[in-house]
Amino acid sequence: VINQVQLQTMLASKASRVVHAARGCAVVDFGLRRVHGTDAGLKSARAFHIAGVTATSNVLAGKRYGIPIAGTMAHSYVQAHASELEAFRSFAEVFPSTVLLVDTYDTLDGVRNVIQLSQELGSGFRVRGIRLDSGDLGPLATQARALLDAAGLEHVGIFASGSLDEHEVERLLDGGAPITGFGVGTHMGVSSDAPYLDIVYKLVEYAGAGRIKLSPDKLVRPGPKQVLRVEQSGAALHDLLAVAGEDLPGRPLLELVMKNGNRLDSGRVPLEAARAHAAAELRKLPDRVRALRPADPPYRVQSSALLDVRTREGAARVLRRPP
Amino acid sequence: VINQVQLQTMLASKASRVVHAARGCAVVDFGLRRVHGTDAGLKSARAFHIAGVTATSNVLAGKRYGIPIAGTMAHSYVQAHASELEAFRSFAEVFPSTVLLVDTYDTLDGVRNVIQLSQELGSGFRVRGIRLDSGDLGPLATQARALLDAAGLEHVGIFASGSLDEHEVERLLDGGAPITGFGVGTHMGVSSDAPYLDIVYKLVEYAGAGRIKLSPDKLVRPGPKQVLRVEQSGAALHDLLAVAGEDLPGRPLLELVMKNGNRLDSGRVPLEAARAHAAAELRKLPDRVRALRPADPPYRVQSSALLDVRTREGAARVLRRPP
Repeated sequence: VINQVQLQTMLASKASRVVHAARGCAVVDFGLRRVHGTDAGLKSARAFHIAGVTATSNVLAGKRYGIPIAGTMAHSYVQAHASELEAFRSFAEVFPSTVLLVDTYDTLDGVRNVIQLSQELGSGFRVRGIRLDSGDLGPLATQARALLDAAGLEHVGIFASGSLDEHEVERLLDGGAPITGFGVGTHMGVSSDAPYLDIVYKLVEYAGAGRIKLSPDKLVRPGPKQVLRVEQSGAALHDLLAVAGEDLPGRPLLELVMKNGNRLDSGRVPLEAARAHAAAELRKLPDRVRALRPADPPYRVQSSALLDVRTREGAARVLRRPP
Repeated sequence: VINQVQLQTMLASKASRVVHAARGCAVVDFGLRRVHGTDAGLKSARAFHIAGVTATSNVLAGKRYGIPIAGTMAHSYVQAHASELEAFRSFAEVFPSTVLLVDTYDTLDGVRNVIQLSQELGSGFRVRGIRLDSGDLGPLATQARALLDAAGLEHVGIFASGSLDEHEVERLLDGGAPITGFGVGTHMGVSSDAPYLDIVYKLVEYAGAGRIKLSPDKLVRPGPKQVLRVEQSGAALHDLLAVAGEDLPGRPLLELVMKNGNRLDSGRVPLEAARAHAAAELRKLPDRVRALRPADPPYRVQSSALLDVRTREGAARVLRRPP
């Protein structure tokens, strides 16, 4: 259980940062080849969708979970043809409203081949966009935009990919790059700067009594808890970690989803409802907490007085010498 | 395919670094709760075993692949009892030659409880070791060793765990910590400082002709390759990337394991043979390449003159303007 919770929480958190940085531009999951195995391949696409990612290039995950599927074309398709232009001709014949990958040999020559195709096809040209996958994406996007606009292809979008993460997406958009969508793979797929979430499954109650763990930097407080979010005008102010059932102000965040080892029906949420819930909860967080840099001072999380008392009592029970 | 190759190559590489740092001490895989999903949970244990890890705490992986299974006890077992000493009594009754986890409440008091158990059990005391899982492991190991030795328990080993990686293992052993085994989880399980391996599946030949890709920093050279390792007295000097079939000095490293999309029987290697092969190949690398810090200058990898010619010819064929 903890393996799945840490995986999906971590990947959804990473993806929500990428979506935030993309400021409404499409974000497509390209992570399958880099994620750690087949289970993560499916679960990552699901977690990303909940976090607000637009679509996935993972066809099986898309079909299994009902996630929009999107992708562009592969370099191998271009390479298998005698020339890039010939590859574009063939691909657009099968997939008229596609996104053509222009960087296999030379990015701007690739854009010129797209323009030539548009001239060949005339009103039959329905290509939606081009994809840049290497080089300095900001300047290349600007140059590609200029070439496309000069050819009357203002409606053709520019999709960028290649080692992107939330910081690179932010840098590109801050620099004014005319990019309309991002394909994000490796860094989102493995949450590369934070590839694990240090959560644990710990005993807090047994035989009706609270249980404690006192290992340095790994304190486990006794008994079931509730997290109360204190809000003002719909915006989160701080959280309070309390003993379950304590009568304190704040909106309770924890709900019972498993009992006696079985998942409860109340724990089964449709994917779209989970996505909407995530978006609504994220909107309630202050901007400084949602920003890509760590909030300073950090978001405040305190424990209740009763929980502190129970912790001290629990420690006294198990220690040879009182703390 | 590429998903599995990158996962297992990356994790085996990380694990071989941990094994190297442990200098013959046991290394047990504790990674299941942190790896990315269930597939990675199984495959990581397999990759770790090939790389020289002693055992895994993942029982299913151990049974499925024939990997030695080892573990200690859980904090929850200690917490569920009225006292730590009572928990140790119960656990040692069921698993006499176990490793007792001593840090739930206070590490050195935990060691004293192990000593008390040894006095209670007398000649029936068969506990193999203690496990330290938090705090400053080096000084704690030294203090625990002194307590155990003073009680005549010189044969009881000290097993350390808790956010370990190859650098921390090296630091502990360099500092003279009397540790006999390491449990390594999170950092090895997700290869935390290098959680992806930037390898790709690329087309190099199609319809009998070599194919090239020229994207900046992502050059793909045309045609099938061979890697030749040039050795002297059994030690690797440098590698040469050559056109497959070129008559050049060096030991070929690549073997055909798939054909027409199917795995060949020659590609099926028993796990123990893979483990022995990995150990033998690692022994042939120079010490400076096996060290934890990057080799400076790096290990030399060059391309053959013929491969360079083919690359230039391939580029000229696909570019509008010769490079």
